[in-house]
Amino acid sequence: MDTRNFTLLTDFYELTMMQGYFRNNVTERVVFDLFYRQNPDDGGYAVCAGLANVIDYIKSLHFDYDDIDYLRGLNTFDEDFLDYLASFHFTGDVYAIPEGTVIFPREPLIKVVGPIMEAQLVETALLNLVNHQSLIATKAARVCYAARGGGVMEFGLRRAQGPDAGTFGARAAIIGGCIGTSNVICAKEYGVPALGTHAHSWIMSFGDELTAFRRYAELYPNNTTLLVDTYDTLRSGVPHAIQVFKELHDSGRMPEKYGIRLDSGDLAYLSKKARKMLDDAGFPQAEICASSDLDEYLIDSLLSQGACIDSWGVGTNLITSKNTPAFGGVYKLAAVEQDNTLIPKIKLSENPAKITNPGNKTVYRIYDKETGKIRADYITLAEETFDETEDLLLFDSNATWKKTLLKGGTYEMKEILVPVFQNGQCVYESPTVMEIQAYCKAQLDTMWEESRRLVNPQEVYVDLSDKLYEMKKTLLNETRQ
Amino acid sequence: MDTRNFTLLTDFYELTMMQGYFRNNVTERVVFDLFYRQNPDDGGYAVCAGLANVIDYIKSLHFDYDDIDYLRGLNTFDEDFLDYLASFHFTGDVYAIPEGTVIFPREPLIKVVGPIMEAQLVETALLNLVNHQSLIATKAARVCYAARGGGVMEFGLRRAQGPDAGTFGARAAIIGGCIGTSNVICAKEYGVPALGTHAHSWIMSFGDELTAFRRYAELYPNNTTLLVDTYDTLRSGVPHAIQVFKELHDSGRMPEKYGIRLDSGDLAYLSKKARKMLDDAGFPQAEICASSDLDEYLIDSLLSQGACIDSWGVGTNLITSKNTPAFGGVYKLAAVEQDNTLIPKIKLSENPAKITNPGNKTVYRIYDKETGKIRADYITLAEETFDETEDLLLFDSNATWKKTLLKGGTYEMKEILVPVFQNGQCVYESPTVMEIQAYCKAQLDTMWEESRRLVNPQEVYVDLSDKLYEMKKTLLNETRQ
Repeated sequence: MDTRNFTLLTDFYELTMMQGYFRNNVTERVVFDLFYRQNPDDGGYAVCAGLANVIDYIKSLHFDYDDIDYLRGLNTFDEDFLDYLASFHFTGDVYAIPEGTVIFPREPLIKVVGPIMEAQLVETALLNLVNHQSLIATKAARVCYAARGGGVMEFGLRRAQGPDAGTFGARAAIIGGCIGTSNVICAKEYGVPALGTHAHSWIMSFGDELTAFRRYAELYPNNTTLLVDTYDTLRSGVPHAIQVFKELHDSGRMPEKYGIRLDSGDLAYLSKKARKMLDDAGFPQAEICASSDLDEYLIDSLLSQGACIDSWGVGTNLITSKNTPAFGGVYKLAAVEQDNTLIPKIKLSENPAKITNPGNKTVYRIYDKETGKIRADYITLAEETFDETEDLLLFDSNATWKKTLLKGGTYEMKEILVPVFQNGQCVYESPTVMEIQAYCKAQLDTMWEESRRLVNPQEVYVDLSDKLYEMKKTLLNETRQ
Repeated sequence: MDTRNFTLLTDFYELTMMQGYFRNNVTERVVFDLFYRQNPDDGGYAVCAGLANVIDYIKSLHFDYDDIDYLRGLNTFDEDFLDYLASFHFTGDVYAIPEGTVIFPREPLIKVVGPIMEAQLVETALLNLVNHQSLIATKAARVCYAARGGGVMEFGLRRAQGPDAGTFGARAAIIGGCIGTSNVICAKEYGVPALGTHAHSWIMSFGDELTAFRRYAELYPNNTTLLVDTYDTLRSGVPHAIQVFKELHDSGRMPEKYGIRLDSGDLAYLSKKARKMLDDAGFPQAEICASSDLDEYLIDSLLSQGACIDSWGVGTNLITSKNTPAFGGVYKLAAVEQDNTLIPKIKLSENPAKITNPGNKTVYRIYDKETGKIRADYITLAEETFDETEDLLLFDSNATWKKTLLKGGTYEMKEILVPVFQNGQCVYESPTVMEIQAYCKAQLDTMWEESRRLVNPQEVYVDLSDKLYEMKKTLLNETRQ
């Protein structure tokens, strides 16, 4: 658990608004939804992540003496509001979709129900943590998909946007399917495999490549992966690696796992040549690992070209989600309690896709009973109930003529938004990162192949229940007037 | 100062290589250079940042009992090596270009000279911190340049790649020229302005927009900026804001600073209309602030269209440096000491731009004496000396026919790589962030306009001294053989 105090990891306006609510005695309970609008990389899905860190954050929410003192110095906050902050703790309810779940645009990933001041304060940190980790988990799932079963190692710490981006990012990458990370602090913190071999500087610091390889093989006799591109991959690196493997073989010290790493040049060409050289020398078990500015498209292209690469080290493009470096999750007010009733609220926009879904909602996932694959996600009002033996008519709320009838008995519904905090108490225990990885893998298997492909995937339906749709229409008309 | 222990914020291979050096008694002093190869966003420069955090990191480098215990559990490290780690501290020298300095590709931003095990360990964290903050400081400088003197506020925390990306990123954004940040933890930690007003949820939580505006104006009577796009900018938001300004005026409570914020829609059109409405109502002092997925190109375009916008809130695109989300800095071995002499080392590559500059080097900046503008940067061997009264012939090492003669007496040379650690002791005191911001502004003024422009800028020369160039040629020929 992260012991840093993230209470001030918030936008200044959350505090100025809080003081506004405090002074105006606005203490109503409200509902906020955290959701996103577009899949990264124009993909067909995302993978949600970051909830464990959100839980740590909410559990430890409190203003230190030091924080209060700092805020006092800004000459913006009254003493009675500062007193309130000094005794602040979170008393609300939180619902969330578990980490590692496949998610789709517009559905609430997190729902916060609580007094407006509390629900407002947590906005920025929740968005920060969930946006970041969902982004990287999604990218990792894409990269691992492209690798077609070959192991993908997360190697991006040096290019990550700061220490947390490296560490929380590696955590998310493992959730999305990476087999391990080079980041030691992440490996320690989250109990995931730490991976890596050596750098060009190892080779350069010895007099010659062969000596550097021999020394490395002596040191790490169980896993000897040699970096072969420091001087000349095919004329120096691979022949030297083969020589060392022969020496190990002849002395009966053959490592359990051994191979080479290619880190530059034309990886399709070099891997095929190197594969042949290794095979011809009697080392068909030698693995070829590749790194060098890889992403899902390059890996897919290399494998389509017949590149002989067994595993992949992916850095910059994964840890920054280079083509789409922000997830774009938002946190919107959906309802305000008045006289013990939640009054739905809507936010208008010139852009129809930006109009929010009002009310206190939940999300069901609808599976095809026969295949176990996802038919659709269904956003409903929290209090609605459904009978799986009855027919269900789905329609797209942006294009209501698009209808799909699910025959009763052919589908299963599962509520995917689960309670995490109740009255400020945590009621959810996060699985380990490796458990979440296994869950995520099973989740990805519930998707149709057409929605997983990297380019131009089929969109998964996210539909609104009739009641929610009617409520939205009514509110839209009222507000427009 | 960050009190986290970042010692394990390193790639696993740094530790496996360290153990290799330890067991092979490789204790030579070495020189590593941290440099980058390409300006973000195809710009003409970068702004370096992150050094203060690098200093904190090196000062607090140590392996906790907990760290040692974790490493022991990996069954990869010997007890004698773990003993060495338990007493590890940094004893080397570090030179760096001060934060806020304008920098160019291929010049060492940081030079580490020390025993190979120490110099190797710090690679990953140095790259992580400097890559990230230089990226964001550079982006901020570009965005502020586009804003032509209008204030730019950093609003990106919710979309940043984790908490550090938000906080160190906001620090870097302020170095690059932002007037403040919404991120409270950054404002507190680094003594920079915390900025912000209110969100759509503030408006929505009150019954109506006018009431919400009135309550806000009562609360913050010195700085009343009203968000006008919750329902309808020109038909509701701006008229209601004007009504509130009139009420404040009539009751003699006109705020010192007041105005509106536009957060959606066509900002060129809306800002001109809103400006006219505010002016016609007698509020020419009312400021118009804009936000909504802005970056330097959009701001430039809006101002070119005559948009009436006085200040800018920039989030996602700044805090993630969206078009170029990684800086690409690298850390390369340049020399290894043998018998008290530093032997230069070179790393080859198929790509000439990736061949490193060997040897123990430094960097001079050459200014035009008359204008104070940068003529070129000059990478030299550390021991070289120069006489500014003599002519200096510069040439491009990748295109040696490109020559420039600087007449003696017309230029000034300043060494920009300065000592930061000597024998493990810090000998450099970081200025405050606001001081670095002022220094950065002065630095940007030393650039020719042609190299600052956003698109297709003139490249600033980064040349090698004759001695360095000869050394490089010799080594290239030797290594190729």
